[in-house]
Amino acid sequence: MQTQKLLVNGERLKKELETFANFGRTPNNGVTRLALSEEDRLARDYFCKCCDQLGMNVKVDDMGSIWATLPGVEDKPPIVIGSHLDTVKKGGRFDGVLGVLAGLEVVRTLVDHNIKPRIPITIVNITNEEGARFEPSMMASGVISGKFNKEVMMRKQDKDGVTFEEALNEINYAGDIRNRCEEGTAFLELHIEQGPVLESENLTIGVVEAVMGMVCYEIEISGESNHAGTTPMGMRKDALFAMNDFLQSIRPEFSKLDKELVFTVGRVDVKPNIHTVIPNNVVFSLEARHKDEGVINEVENIIAEQAKKVIDQGDCDVKLTKMWARDTVWFDNELVRLVEQSTQTLGYSYKKMISGAGHDAQFMNRIIPSVMIFAPSKNGKSHCEEEETTWLECEQGANVLLETVLTMIKEK
Amino acid sequence: MQTQKLLVNGERLKKELETFANFGRTPNNGVTRLALSEEDRLARDYFCKCCDQLGMNVKVDDMGSIWATLPGVEDKPPIVIGSHLDTVKKGGRFDGVLGVLAGLEVVRTLVDHNIKPRIPITIVNITNEEGARFEPSMMASGVISGKFNKEVMMRKQDKDGVTFEEALNEINYAGDIRNRCEEGTAFLELHIEQGPVLESENLTIGVVEAVMGMVCYEIEISGESNHAGTTPMGMRKDALFAMNDFLQSIRPEFSKLDKELVFTVGRVDVKPNIHTVIPNNVVFSLEARHKDEGVINEVENIIAEQAKKVIDQGDCDVKLTKMWARDTVWFDNELVRLVEQSTQTLGYSYKKMISGAGHDAQFMNRIIPSVMIFAPSKNGKSHCEEEETTWLECEQGANVLLETVLTMIKEK
Repeated sequence: MQTQKLLVNGERLKKELETFANFGRTPNNGVTRLALSEEDRLARDYFCKCCDQLGMNVKVDDMGSIWATLPGVEDKPPIVIGSHLDTVKKGGRFDGVLGVLAGLEVVRTLVDHNIKPRIPITIVNITNEEGARFEPSMMASGVISGKFNKEVMMRKQDKDGVTFEEALNEINYAGDIRNRCEEGTAFLELHIEQGPVLESENLTIGVVEAVMGMVCYEIEISGESNHAGTTPMGMRKDALFAMNDFLQSIRPEFSKLDKELVFTVGRVDVKPNIHTVIPNNVVFSLEARHKDEGVINEVENIIAEQAKKVIDQGDCDVKLTKMWARDTVWFDNELVRLVEQSTQTLGYSYKKMISGAGHDAQFMNRIIPSVMIFAPSKNGKSHCEEEETTWLECEQGANVLLETVLTMIKEK
Repeated sequence: MQTQKLLVNGERLKKELETFANFGRTPNNGVTRLALSEEDRLARDYFCKCCDQLGMNVKVDDMGSIWATLPGVEDKPPIVIGSHLDTVKKGGRFDGVLGVLAGLEVVRTLVDHNIKPRIPITIVNITNEEGARFEPSMMASGVISGKFNKEVMMRKQDKDGVTFEEALNEINYAGDIRNRCEEGTAFLELHIEQGPVLESENLTIGVVEAVMGMVCYEIEISGESNHAGTTPMGMRKDALFAMNDFLQSIRPEFSKLDKELVFTVGRVDVKPNIHTVIPNNVVFSLEARHKDEGVINEVENIIAEQAKKVIDQGDCDVKLTKMWARDTVWFDNELVRLVEQSTQTLGYSYKKMISGAGHDAQFMNRIIPSVMIFAPSKNGKSHCEEEETTWLECEQGANVLLETVLTMIKEK
């Protein structure tokens, strides 16, 4: 069987990526294709047609995820390749869709060359990864892996009050629970990096070993509102300056912990938010991500200590709410090794890396051994219209996927 | 003429303050009486009736301000006493109304004792001091003193699109420009302090020498939004942390300038304000107040220097917009001396002070020699339902007003 020299058809992959970008393309060449929207339905229909034309067996499960299977010579649990077709509002042309269409391109390449795989190959479009219309993100992979409760998810509403279940029926993608693929030889997800590391180090491929653990706090600092002109500085209980001091204390401490730790205050809400009034209340998010649980624990200790210091000073109160946390998800060692080997075989530059963003693969890994492959993101941008990965980089990512599949389906 | 021993009727003043609190009283014993609202109309009508019953000559000017005059023996420019009847949303029972009703109580006391003043006494309710419904604040005093353009003010809209002019006609308080009082012997405004100083020093009266100068900037820091999980700390252009550093640098520098300088960041707007996204844009207000122009100049230099430092670091851009500034308004020396003398005569504890808040008197001072008297504010609170000044403190403030008027109307 020919394996080393087989490559995907980059032109065809590019054409399909552009075709899918038309399902919701924005004036600035981004894409808005919210989960279970009309644009999503059109993309799904087209995807099903493509799979059908390849002689694949297309099934839809109860969460609306689409599983298209190319039968194998042996009746083994399939190699599952996929990602998601939904996007955020004004998102890009690569996030999610690349992993699904690269799967399609891999199967097309096999069919082109009359390669009948030893074990089945399934391409999956996993419903609602983004969580942009229906929270939470990674909804369907969360349900299939037992992380989320299906009934609760079915009742989730979008901003117009439409439930997930209603929307699923509306686009005619409410399928059968028996169509879930809960057993597999491997789950392979090619995705854009969504960060600047590969580009800045001039590398082609990221071999993803894990999805980074994280913790996210909501921190509320309460002081007292008073007139900005009439209250002497010494008599103030300024919640905004207290937040200022809090952040200024923890930032150097965090930085000392480990250079790979990332931490972000993304959301800040100030009350009453009037320029002539001293803020009495500031609520902000503080999230931190690192692969080592020990580092995350230290982050939490620092937050707690600093909160205590502010409270002890007596001017402001601090309330810490741990919104969520997740442990680092380590992907399957053997699959990581296999992807690395495929990349080397193809002669692509690469690095092993940890994903800072969450992905369906972190949940799929609970039921099927999983691994991820990253393609570079221009300027590290994603979830925006400027999101960009070159056609060559998309093709190279798909080649790593193909090479990995070819190795797995080789006769043993 | 009896002057030293004459005092106001505290019970009557209390009763009227409670009566006026009914024009818009909130469930938590605050008041919502926005300018030119139905509640404002009711308060105005009642005020006019009271003045009318005292034999005063009631006139309404083109901005809706009400001027009620008790004729004097001599046809001299009047002593004007007043403040405003409008409140902010969910404001208190004392801010503004105290200065108008204390004026009413002074006139009632004179009438009680058959004192016919040598020079006329005018009580004024100045329209829309708060600017809560129609910006800007101190609108009518700004127009009468030539600070604001009348035609522009007439077109100001509330949040429902109703213009100031329409609202004025709606409540039937659009009067004649000839009724403006543009000449006076003195303008006397009793007001609550709206700050904690008098209470904390256990004083009864503030003799207000000036309204503090201020400067207010809107500061916009622009960075770059990226994924909170995938962007290494060294590759971020975090606008929020840049704001954090900016404030942390200027705060100690401001504190060194002068202990009386007050500075506030009251408004902060973060974009995109999502916990998983590094903020790319933070817009915040920074205002500072001090009586000395030199200190305010130094504040502005510090802001400019720090902005330059942030820009020079290369990660974020900073845009400074000077929203407004006002110089310190010094009240009439002779009137300040007179109020201080009245306070001493009455045996009340007091201090000379500078108002950090803006008041109609700062504009009136442009056309009529002015002075203000402060009564204590419990916990320094104002513009809220908890706003409180004891009945005794209200009475004592009115007594200072009366004593000052009695001195001024004495035969020379």
